[in-house]
Amino acid sequence: MSFPRRVRIVEVGPRDGLQNEARILPTERRIALIQGLVQAGLTIIEAGSFVSPKWVPQMADTASVLAGLDLDAGIAYPVLAPNMKGYSEARAAGAREVAIFAAASESFSQRNINCSIAESLDRFRPVAEAAAQDGVRLRGYVSCVLGCPYEGDVPVSRVRDVSQALMQLGCYEVSLGDTIGVGTPLKARAMLQTVAEAIPMAALALHFHDTYGMALANIFACLELGVSVIDAAVGGLGGCPYAAGASGNVSTEDLVTMLDGMGIETGIDREALIAAGQIAVAGLGHPARSKLAAARAQAP
Amino acid sequence: MSFPRRVRIVEVGPRDGLQNEARILPTERRIALIQGLVQAGLTIIEAGSFVSPKWVPQMADTASVLAGLDLDAGIAYPVLAPNMKGYSEARAAGAREVAIFAAASESFSQRNINCSIAESLDRFRPVAEAAAQDGVRLRGYVSCVLGCPYEGDVPVSRVRDVSQALMQLGCYEVSLGDTIGVGTPLKARAMLQTVAEAIPMAALALHFHDTYGMALANIFACLELGVSVIDAAVGGLGGCPYAAGASGNVSTEDLVTMLDGMGIETGIDREALIAAGQIAVAGLGHPARSKLAAARAQAP
Repeated sequence: MSFPRRVRIVEVGPRDGLQNEARILPTERRIALIQGLVQAGLTIIEAGSFVSPKWVPQMADTASVLAGLDLDAGIAYPVLAPNMKGYSEARAAGAREVAIFAAASESFSQRNINCSIAESLDRFRPVAEAAAQDGVRLRGYVSCVLGCPYEGDVPVSRVRDVSQALMQLGCYEVSLGDTIGVGTPLKARAMLQTVAEAIPMAALALHFHDTYGMALANIFACLELGVSVIDAAVGGLGGCPYAAGASGNVSTEDLVTMLDGMGIETGIDREALIAAGQIAVAGLGHPARSKLAAARAQAP
Repeated sequence: MSFPRRVRIVEVGPRDGLQNEARILPTERRIALIQGLVQAGLTIIEAGSFVSPKWVPQMADTASVLAGLDLDAGIAYPVLAPNMKGYSEARAAGAREVAIFAAASESFSQRNINCSIAESLDRFRPVAEAAAQDGVRLRGYVSCVLGCPYEGDVPVSRVRDVSQALMQLGCYEVSLGDTIGVGTPLKARAMLQTVAEAIPMAALALHFHDTYGMALANIFACLELGVSVIDAAVGGLGGCPYAAGASGNVSTEDLVTMLDGMGIETGIDREALIAAGQIAVAGLGHPARSKLAAARAQAP
């Protein structure tokens, strides 16, 4: 067991976070949020999705968001592009990195994207081929890695196999998502260990939701195996459609607090991060779901 | 490193939790809360304090609370009794277990109880002697084990020495308190390891506050060393006088979620625990600070 010296945080608040918020943030505020995150030191920020605005109205103007950003400043702005229509729109908007997502649970795949896991991988193939040809970086997500709202437990061998399929499609990294936040530390670590038998640890990321407050403990347990890429959302943006009112992604602020305390470098300034989070929550009608932000905001 | 098979949770919500809440819970509701906790399977529940009602009005009627409980039902109800006046009152009220508390930081000791650490230990001596004579169990607390609001870092050797002094006074167990919640996992584990050089692990408890969201990760890191007693407060009751609006003790509900997921026995029923927490928060004017309670309470 060895902790990483440095962790790369992938900020997913402007996409995974905002798409699970009830209120839609105006384009200008989404851009300001992302610029605030750059100020705080984040270098990879998921900026939106090119999916049907009927299903995800929060992300409808992702092209305008990208248009408002400096795409040449050395910051990666991946966007979700699950099919060729989305991929073409993403490219037209200037995207240089796209993300695709598969589930580790058949029931979740059927209910979330109306096809089997195998079918979803087939649908990603043309996107992956086009990305390879265009020199566009491809990131993969696997959902339900620690449990499914319909099936309950998900076999770790399935998580490993789906992750491997995404790597074979050409992803440089696979992000392991505890979509409904039901993981606990030893299960999270065992899952990561199994996936790492098939994929180098350096190509694996954690994407844990804090629905039941377990995210940081799960991350700590996995850091002991050497994982060094972690997805997080400033202000703990987002929620859980399967547990209304629950927390969303692990808060970037609280993750950085933990990593700072462990002497693991992130390159992120916590105060600037809190400020960036305020840009978002000021437009969402609820306070930041970050313990650090809460403790600071109400300090005497 | 070896995880414990079973963890004993010491419920501190009715004392450490409630004494840090702005609203004072009526006696009847405090009794109902404690009875709810017994129903949930807790067997050691801190029931109150015998300290000056001028300083801690929330605990003023602790004798009435004890009078409303069945003290012969095999449940331990420790109460704080930092001096002979408090001890006598506790005994008159039927208490069979008392707790004393010292700080690991000189500045905190001075500001919190107006004396040095050494003086505080001297003051506890007559309480400890009386308890030994009366067959009353004595529990010790050490505060600021991972940091002090006035001094910042606290040397782990000081935590070890103060813990040892409490054991020498006759405490059967010392609870290590991260009073302001500034600990992170590796520091928490290193602190515990140092204290465990002087005191058997079986006589050590963790008492972590969740001010910055680190409590569960810190507990997980320490569980790997085999610690098997953990203080927690239902509904995450309490707060932090040094960070207004911040979280208090780690929530018992969320702790049990983590331990259940790790296959570590607690004997506690989570649904009954959530119900007990509701008894308290219904009288406090804010929702439970427990992710589990939040996810359940607002579920569709």
